[in-house]
Amino acid sequence: MAYEQLNETTVIEYIRGLPEVKSVFSDLSDLHVREIGDGNLNYVYIITSNKDPNETVVLKQAVPFLRIVGESWPLPKERMTFEIMALETEERYCPGLVPKVYHASHEMSLVVMQNLKDHAVLRGEMNQGKVFPKLAEDISTFMARTLFYTSDRFLDHRTKKEEVKKYINIDLCKITEDFVFSHPFYRSDTNVYNEKLSQADIDLVQKDGELKIRQAEMKYIFMTRAEALLHGDLHTGSIMANADETYIIDPEFAFFGPIGFDVGLYIGNSFLAYLAHAHRQVLLGNEPVEYRTWILGMIRDTWNLFAQKFERLWAEHHSANPEPFWDQPTAEQDHAEYRKRSLARIFEDTLGVAGSAMIRRTLGLAKVSDIADIEDLDSRARIDRMALEMGKELIINRNRYDGIDPVISLATSISPADQAIG
Amino acid sequence: MAYEQLNETTVIEYIRGLPEVKSVFSDLSDLHVREIGDGNLNYVYIITSNKDPNETVVLKQAVPFLRIVGESWPLPKERMTFEIMALETEERYCPGLVPKVYHASHEMSLVVMQNLKDHAVLRGEMNQGKVFPKLAEDISTFMARTLFYTSDRFLDHRTKKEEVKKYINIDLCKITEDFVFSHPFYRSDTNVYNEKLSQADIDLVQKDGELKIRQAEMKYIFMTRAEALLHGDLHTGSIMANADETYIIDPEFAFFGPIGFDVGLYIGNSFLAYLAHAHRQVLLGNEPVEYRTWILGMIRDTWNLFAQKFERLWAEHHSANPEPFWDQPTAEQDHAEYRKRSLARIFEDTLGVAGSAMIRRTLGLAKVSDIADIEDLDSRARIDRMALEMGKELIINRNRYDGIDPVISLATSISPADQAIG
Repeated sequence: MAYEQLNETTVIEYIRGLPEVKSVFSDLSDLHVREIGDGNLNYVYIITSNKDPNETVVLKQAVPFLRIVGESWPLPKERMTFEIMALETEERYCPGLVPKVYHASHEMSLVVMQNLKDHAVLRGEMNQGKVFPKLAEDISTFMARTLFYTSDRFLDHRTKKEEVKKYINIDLCKITEDFVFSHPFYRSDTNVYNEKLSQADIDLVQKDGELKIRQAEMKYIFMTRAEALLHGDLHTGSIMANADETYIIDPEFAFFGPIGFDVGLYIGNSFLAYLAHAHRQVLLGNEPVEYRTWILGMIRDTWNLFAQKFERLWAEHHSANPEPFWDQPTAEQDHAEYRKRSLARIFEDTLGVAGSAMIRRTLGLAKVSDIADIEDLDSRARIDRMALEMGKELIINRNRYDGIDPVISLATSISPADQAIG
Repeated sequence: MAYEQLNETTVIEYIRGLPEVKSVFSDLSDLHVREIGDGNLNYVYIITSNKDPNETVVLKQAVPFLRIVGESWPLPKERMTFEIMALETEERYCPGLVPKVYHASHEMSLVVMQNLKDHAVLRGEMNQGKVFPKLAEDISTFMARTLFYTSDRFLDHRTKKEEVKKYINIDLCKITEDFVFSHPFYRSDTNVYNEKLSQADIDLVQKDGELKIRQAEMKYIFMTRAEALLHGDLHTGSIMANADETYIIDPEFAFFGPIGFDVGLYIGNSFLAYLAHAHRQVLLGNEPVEYRTWILGMIRDTWNLFAQKFERLWAEHHSANPEPFWDQPTAEQDHAEYRKRSLARIFEDTLGVAGSAMIRRTLGLAKVSDIADIEDLDSRARIDRMALEMGKELIINRNRYDGIDPVISLATSISPADQAIG
């Protein structure tokens, strides 16, 4: 059917017309709908049976403009095509870590999927100081499997290139190029930040020549390296979780880019949570050290588990499908060394992206509630400055860290785990 | 019209039906045709007026198989689409350095173009010891302009990504991945080499663990870095020249890849010519030093002029289109430093590709006549070993050369310019 923007009335009619949801709803005649419009880009409807609240789905529809701004900022609704394709690929390699899709329509730019009603957005939960014991395990699995199985390490040459072509995602990449890699690093009109930051604080980022060079390199890497299918927006706001389960949502930014991008965005956002809790734990009436130590451990585990899992998938695939190229007597140890060096390069990109994420969330347009919702602006400014300092160091010296432990040490040297702010 | 493989009879009918060639031929009723079938892939016809030999064109048609093998090796004739598109792009940025196209048909997988009858293939000419005073100037211009104007350094984000998508060239890239980056580096059935090379000579390449790792990295770079529209097969056999003019032909391997690939392939082939002339100049009755010194100077000039021209195009574009990102007080010198480091990375790729080209032309399937046509197999083996030694060093230590001069020194340390072989 031709594209039509749904509303709370027509969305029910649309759902009733779908054979795929008959497995969810025992009675399609008695549904109610609620729009949960907290998104910047799309419309999201929760459709639930009046008889049984467990019979429920989510319908997400893209509109041909940026919702947060309005029709004056056009954004092709075809971005939903990337989300639908990526959800299918992620489901193939990580069933149970992405919402189950019941129905998708490229024409209508919509997807009908599992309502994660027993889960909440990770960022909000972490702001409340909740611990997620399975988080590092699940996120590292998601990253290792989606990134390995869509890379040249696994796919044959033809499939990989056909996939790259399918996922050329011009408009959404442009948002990242501008708002993550560029605007926060100069005096852009789009930037928004804590009024308690001084010009001198900002100039430490925006006037530093070496940082500019190293950041321009990161943007170029993002624009030119088609290594694997990225989620493209993998921060703590794109994850829904409870104590038992983790779901990764919203892959509309998906495209083939550098493997370190997904890993770096997640780790950068996690370090922002670490910094925020120097203050948030005080508000919650706790000594900060316990929760912040959990976050640092989660970051450490996330990288180490990701690297181990990615490396193991690669090693196993290599053993099961021997490449004649590696036929020298020392091939086994040489290939292990090749994998190790490749992971080291991914780590370098990871740190550069983590630093970019920390700076852009401090100076750029899109904020993280972890820090931006802190009401005491002086406390917030102390944390903002730490985020800028750490982000800058990671971008400039990303090639000088030989593992996650020195990066954790960097974080604790900037803000000791027991530091209480405010 | 639907695809039809032409022959010497139907090609004349086809030419007569083209309005575009009326500017070339004063009389379309009196033409003769000659197939010059030295290609491995395609059919090439020369069509000339019987009245005036200056009235002449070339028609090149792709067939849906690898011509050198036959119909048993299918290869999509759509490869001509890439050649047609690339010829148009190259003509836009380098008029006079590519043959003028009169007519192109994607459906018929053919192109009708300027007959370069006053020029000869550079490789054959250099084998004869001819000097080309304008070569470095012209090749460096071609590389700098085609590579700059198709990169993110010049194109806007949208055009670049649309172009990347158009130029996904799966089958031809596969040939390079296999025959340049893989097969020569292990005991592959496809390899062909001088019987005078010992297993020990070959094992110095094929059994070296560090070389395998560094070569696997080069292949991955080729497969993942979409930096600019490459010619994709830029060696001395893809160039036609005389003392005054240089034409770059046959861009059917065109795709978006690492900038250093084109530069490295050309420089690697030129170093092979340098090595070959330790023997060829003796056969020609000359002291080798003069011609070989010219080749080294041509290589030096090619890199230095390429780097200067690319850098200047970038600097000028940057000045004329200021990017707000570079707004710090030291922006001018910082951007210059950024350009310098970017060129250094291109140089690193260049050397890795040059080394791959030198080894693949020695051990792989496709040979270069410079060396492979040397009849004295012992002399040829001495040169083969030098090519392997230099290729290996360039691949392994490609990051340790800070300019072309130390690479020239490497060549003369392996074979002094005045060395006479055979």
